[in-house]
Amino acid sequence: MGASVAAALRRRGLTSSIVGYDRDRGVCARAVELGLVDEAAPGPAQAVRGADLVVLAAPVGAMPELLKAIVAQLEPGALVTDLGSTKSDVMAAARDALGPAFARFVAAHPIAGSERSGPDGADPDLFEDCTVVITAARETSAGALARVEALWRSCGARIARMEAGDHDRLLASVSHLPHVLAFALVAQIAGEPDAQRKLSFAGPGFRDFTRIAASSPVMWLDIVLANRAALGQELRALIAMLQRIDRALEAGDVRWLQQMLELASRTRRSIDGDRHEQ
Amino acid sequence: MGASVAAALRRRGLTSSIVGYDRDRGVCARAVELGLVDEAAPGPAQAVRGADLVVLAAPVGAMPELLKAIVAQLEPGALVTDLGSTKSDVMAAARDALGPAFARFVAAHPIAGSERSGPDGADPDLFEDCTVVITAARETSAGALARVEALWRSCGARIARMEAGDHDRLLASVSHLPHVLAFALVAQIAGEPDAQRKLSFAGPGFRDFTRIAASSPVMWLDIVLANRAALGQELRALIAMLQRIDRALEAGDVRWLQQMLELASRTRRSIDGDRHEQ
Repeated sequence: MGASVAAALRRRGLTSSIVGYDRDRGVCARAVELGLVDEAAPGPAQAVRGADLVVLAAPVGAMPELLKAIVAQLEPGALVTDLGSTKSDVMAAARDALGPAFARFVAAHPIAGSERSGPDGADPDLFEDCTVVITAARETSAGALARVEALWRSCGARIARMEAGDHDRLLASVSHLPHVLAFALVAQIAGEPDAQRKLSFAGPGFRDFTRIAASSPVMWLDIVLANRAALGQELRALIAMLQRIDRALEAGDVRWLQQMLELASRTRRSIDGDRHEQ
Repeated sequence: MGASVAAALRRRGLTSSIVGYDRDRGVCARAVELGLVDEAAPGPAQAVRGADLVVLAAPVGAMPELLKAIVAQLEPGALVTDLGSTKSDVMAAARDALGPAFARFVAAHPIAGSERSGPDGADPDLFEDCTVVITAARETSAGALARVEALWRSCGARIARMEAGDHDRLLASVSHLPHVLAFALVAQIAGEPDAQRKLSFAGPGFRDFTRIAASSPVMWLDIVLANRAALGQELRALIAMLQRIDRALEAGDVRWLQQMLELASRTRRSIDGDRHEQ
């Protein structure tokens, strides 16, 4: 997603030059080749030197080390922001690592996804009509906040401000839990002796449902661990719902099942124009 | 899906005339208007009179009544087939209702889906490259089987023959369980006081994951009830997997979580070229 941020800022003329850094040198080289960044730095400290905006696009578990690696080289007045899917942990790491510069750290989470990743998946329009959650702290400078929000708006995004803990509970419900369910279902099938045969009968519904299970396990290990308290709560509530369904199936409780299916179908149809035959 | 069968047969010149019937008169009128059927019959018995092929495209729970309604009017030698998502129950109903004509009943399940339903969603190419499961009984005539399979192949489908019970266990795993999970998640969120706010933060991953929850609750009530034994087994296995994940989150069992996520991601990536950034 870092590549898409670079592409979006560049396309809108919001930056004069972009320096990129990735632990994978191949990714750096490709980003330069594609013109997404003007140059690749050999390390995070070198990448932030001279920058007035630093965008951290790393798995959330890598943030503490990354923040420590850049703090000494940050320009006075440089804005720092991130794209992490969890916010309480990233803000705690930033508060811890950045010292007074934490006032210019603006935690952000663009709720955007893409089927492609890496520099070749960069999409300058990825943030058009997407929601970017901004979780400010007491210490966050109003000026830093306004400038980062303006950048996102320039890329076509809507801003939603909320507390970090509120963000994490919300996302546990509508993002982290669905990912865990998709990973769990695929892992479950993969562990069975006839997995290949079963998967060969997977239809379009299965493909839609499990698409998010193809997501990066590295990134998602970090997310589920970082947000395990809120995620665990959502997970246990869902387990209780599934146990209720199991009992209703066994008891032939048609009325309850019907109400549950109707509520779900009506609710899902309400969130957009999607319809599905089967 | 009945409309897509009509469109597919017509497009390939496999039929001289098509008579349609639906309980909803508006659907009948629209199917005639679109030229999907040549005429609409006032009832199921009238619809099958003179037909050499009868395609039953109704929710599986409606099959027993429907079969009883048509049996007296079936032409000698008429083939009967269905499109139901469960097979043991439909075959039992057909065996029960059709008497000797059961030899010409060929149970079929095209594993195809579409985001659109009804006559306006008819797609003559829906079955291109799709798998059609055929579950024959001991009594099924070899000639009837060959003719129905040839029709599906003409529409671009691959045939997979298996036992009805085997089909139902397989589909419980790769279709019915994912649908139940998607319905359950959406019903769970819908039942919470801040449902609208939560849904307003749903990203593309949530939309993909829950698309199947917009499916017809009528059709899915029938499916989950018809296949409740096999579905219940899959559901309880998945609940055990989710409980294992919950324990791993609580215990911080990083290694197990990592292996589970990697297995799921690798497996999901293997079934097609899909990739997803987050």
